Amino acid sequence: MEIKHLKELIEEKKFSLIQKELLELREADIAELLNEMEAKEVVLLFRLLPKNSASEVFVYLDVERQTEISELISEHELKEIIDELCFDDKIDLIEEVPANIVKKILKNTTTKERTLINQFLNYPEDSAGSLMTIEFVDLKKEMTVEKAMERIRRIGINKETIYTCYVTDTKRKLEGIVTLKELVLSDVDKTVEEIMTAEVISFNTHDDQESIVRKFKKYDFLTMPVVDLEDRLVGIITIDDVVDVIEEETTEDFQRMAAMEPSDEEYLSIPSYLLAKRRVVWLIILMFSAIVTEFITKTHSSLTTEFAMLVGVMPMLMSTGGNTGSQSSTLIIRGLTLGNIKFQDFFKIIAKEFKVGIIIGISLGTLNFLRIWLINNNLKLAIIVGLTLVGTALMAALIGGILPVIAKKIKLDPAIMATPLISTITDATTLLIFFTISAVVLL
Amino acid sequence: MEIKHLKELIEEKKFSLIQKELLELREADIAELLNEMEAKEVVLLFRLLPKNSASEVFVYLDVERQTEISELISEHELKEIIDELCFDDKIDLIEEVPANIVKKILKNTTTKERTLINQFLNYPEDSAGSLMTIEFVDLKKEMTVEKAMERIRRIGINKETIYTCYVTDTKRKLEGIVTLKELVLSDVDKTVEEIMTAEVISFNTHDDQESIVRKFKKYDFLTMPVVDLEDRLVGIITIDDVVDVIEEETTEDFQRMAAMEPSDEEYLSIPSYLLAKRRVVWLIILMFSAIVTEFITKTHSSLTTEFAMLVGVMPMLMSTGGNTGSQSSTLIIRGLTLGNIKFQDFFKIIAKEFKVGIIIGISLGTLNFLRIWLINNNLKLAIIVGLTLVGTALMAALIGGILPVIAKKIKLDPAIMATPLISTITDATTLLIFFTISAVVLL
Repeated sequence: MEIKHLKELIEEKKFSLIQKELLELREADIAELLNEMEAKEVVLLFRLLPKNSASEVFVYLDVERQTEISELISEHELKEIIDELCFDDKIDLIEEVPANIVKKILKNTTTKERTLINQFLNYPEDSAGSLMTIEFVDLKKEMTVEKAMERIRRIGINKETIYTCYVTDTKRKLEGIVTLKELVLSDVDKTVEEIMTAEVISFNTHDDQESIVRKFKKYDFLTMPVVDLEDRLVGIITIDDVVDVIEEETTEDFQRMAAMEPSDEEYLSIPSYLLAKRRVVWLIILMFSAIVTEFITKTHSSLTTEFAMLVGVMPMLMSTGGNTGSQSSTLIIRGLTLGNIKFQDFFKIIAKEFKVGIIIGISLGTLNFLRIWLINNNLKLAIIVGLTLVGTALMAALIGGILPVIAKKIKLDPAIMATPLISTITDATTLLIFFTISAVVLL
Repeated sequence: MEIKHLKELIEEKKFSLIQKELLELREADIAELLNEMEAKEVVLLFRLLPKNSASEVFVYLDVERQTEISELISEHELKEIIDELCFDDKIDLIEEVPANIVKKILKNTTTKERTLINQFLNYPEDSAGSLMTIEFVDLKKEMTVEKAMERIRRIGINKETIYTCYVTDTKRKLEGIVTLKELVLSDVDKTVEEIMTAEVISFNTHDDQESIVRKFKKYDFLTMPVVDLEDRLVGIITIDDVVDVIEEETTEDFQRMAAMEPSDEEYLSIPSYLLAKRRVVWLIILMFSAIVTEFITKTHSSLTTEFAMLVGVMPMLMSTGGNTGSQSSTLIIRGLTLGNIKFQDFFKIIAKEFKVGIIIGISLGTLNFLRIWLINNNLKLAIIVGLTLVGTALMAALIGGILPVIAKKIKLDPAIMATPLISTITDATTLLIFFTISAVVLL
C-alpha cells in the first residue's frame, strides 16, 4: 500500500476500508507505513488494528513512534498491547522508551514479572543476559518422546521457538538439548535422554555479544542456551536477535573507523547538535595531533621557501600515504573482527605489508617519477617524489598493518586505528621522509 | 584440544587416542584444528574420522585445505565424502575448488544430479538461485496434519530444514507455507490448507543477495522460498546462509570504502602481489586526482613563498576537512546500506549536514583561532585558519553527505564515495578556501 493512498483514505474517513487494506499487509510492512505517518494519524491507524497484530506492529516501530503512541493512547489500551508482547520484546521496550512510559508499563505488570524485569535490566548492556529471552521449552530426560511432544503441544504456543528444546534436571541445570526435528523423526517410545545431545555449547549471562556472534556463525545454530554461574538454564538466544546484533556492531565499527562516538540510532532521527557533538570530539583530538605536521613543516621552511615546487606536491604525497595506510588498517581491522587474524599472525602481517608496500611504492613512485620528469621536465623533483612515494607507501602499509593488532593486544578497539588516526600519523611521517629526501637531493 | 597436544600425539603415533579425542569435538572445532595443520597431517587426521563427520568437517574447511585433501585421498574416499554432503554444500564446493577436483567430483555423480548442478552453476553469482538449497519438505494442501507429519517423518531426515514446509500444487506452484510449529500445535484432523499461510513472500531465482538480506531482516524469517518465473518453487534460502552473506557484503563494503577491489578471501591467504594489485589501481586513480591540488598550490605559490607560515598549517587543514567529510559519508553510506536513508531524504540530509558542519566548523575554528592568536601570537594567521576551518568543515560535511546519495541514485555503489575519494575532493576545496581567505587577509 502506498502512503499517499493511505493518507487519502484517512482524509476521506474511509476507516473500514483502511482496516481491510491494512490487514492484508504483514506487521513489518504496516510498521513501515506507520513510521512515515504523523503522530495523530499513527494513533488513529493503530486503533484500527486488532489487538494481537497491534502488538506485533508496535514491536516493529521506531522508538519515537512507540513513545508517541504510548503517550497518546489510554493506559488500558497500552496494557493490552504490552500483555501481548513476548518477554524479550517487553525488556527491549522498557530499555528504550522514556521513564514516564516505563512507569506506565510497570504499573500494569504483576509483582513476579516486575522482579524478573528488574533482574533483566541489571544485566550489562550487550551481554548474553540482556539479549536472551526466557520463553523456551524445557523437558526432562526421563520423558518419552511422546510425553515430550505432548508437553510441547501444551506449552509451545507462547514460546519464542519450539525447534530446540532444553533438557534440565530438577535444579534447572542444563543437561542437554533436543531439536524438534529429532523428536519428530524419532520412535515415540524412546526417552529424551536417548536422543538428546549432552555436550551443549552455552553462554554465560555475562558473555559479551561479540563472542555470541562468533559462536553462532561458527556452529550455524538457530538458538543457543544461556546459563548462570551455577550452570542453571536461564534463557535462550535466537538467531534473529543475533542478526540484529551483527548489524549493530558493524554500524558501530563503521562509525568508530570514521572517528565518531558510536551510536545505533538512525542518522535522520539524531538531532544535529547531538550528531555534531559525537563527531567533534575526535575531530579536535585529530586536529591537535596534526599540529605535529606544523612543526615538521616549520622546521623545514627554508626548503619550502627556496623551492616553491615542493609545496605543490605535499598534498598529493600525504593523501597517497593516508590512502595506503587506511587500506592496510581496514583489511586488518576487518580480519580481527571476523577472527581470521590473531595476534600470533603479527610477523606474517609485517611480512605481507612489507611486500605489498614495496610493490605499491615502486608502482606509484615510478608513475610519478615519469610524469614529473617527462611532463614537468623537472628531474630533481621527479627523483624526490618518486623516492618519497616508495618510502611513504612502505611505511604507511606497515603502520596501517601493525597498529590495529597492537590496539587489540592492549584491549583497545582496533577500529579506532582506522583512516583518521592512521592518516594523521602517516601525514607526519610522509612529510619527514619528503623533507629528508628533498634536503639530500636539493642541498 | 590444543594444536600442540595434537601434534605430539601424531608424533607418538597414538592414533586411537587421537580418534577418541577428535570425536569429542564438534565438527566446526575439528575443522579449525585441521585448518592450522600441515597438508599430510590433515589427510592423516581426516582418515581417522568416521564417514559422516568427515563430510561435515570437510564443509567447514578452508578451500585450500579442501583442495589439498581432495588431491591426496583416493577417488573412492572422495566419493564417500561428497555423497554425504547436502546439495548446496556440493554446489559451494564445486564453485570454489580447482577444475581438476571438480572433474573428480562430477565423475562420481548421477546424470540427473549433474544436470541439476549445471543448472545451479548458471545462476548469477550472489543471486537467490546460487544461494538456495533444493532440500526442502513439500506438502499438498489437501493433506491432513496427520498425513503431513507422516510425510515429514518419511522424507525429513535429509532435508536442510523441516521447520518450514512448502505447500505446492501438482505443477509445483507455491501455494502456501506451514511451519512445523503450526503442524505440531494443530489438531491432526485439520487440513494443511486450513492452517497454512497463503500469502507467501518469496524470492525470484535472479533476485540479488542485498534484497534477500533486507527481507530476512525485515520479516525475521528462518527460511524463505525461491520461485522461478512461472512461480514454481525451486528452492529455499536459510538464515544461516544469509548470515554469511551479511558478513561477506560488509567485508566488501569495508574494502570498497578503503578504495580496494573487494574480495571475500581471507587476508592471510591472499598472495602479496595479488593484494598489491587489488590495492594499487584505486591508489593510482586517487593519486592522479590529487594532482588538482598541485595546480591549486602552484597558482598560489606567490602567497606561500611570501608567507611561509601558510605552508605549516596546510596539512592540518586538509586532514580536518578529510576527516569531517568522511564522517558524513560513512554515516550516509551505512544508512543507505541498512535502508534507513533513501534518495527522498536528500534535502533532509543537506539540512542536517549544513547544521552539523556549521557547529563543527565554528567549534574547530574558534579553538584554532585562540591557539594561534594566544600561543603563536599571530592574529592574521589565526583569522585565516579560523575562517578556513568554518568553510572547510561546512563544505566537507555537505560533500560527504551528498555524494553517496547521488552515487546510489546513478546506480553506483555508494561505498566508493568513502574517505579516500571524499578526502581527495575536500583536499582541493580546502586549499581553495584557504588561499582565497589568505589572499583577502594578507594582500
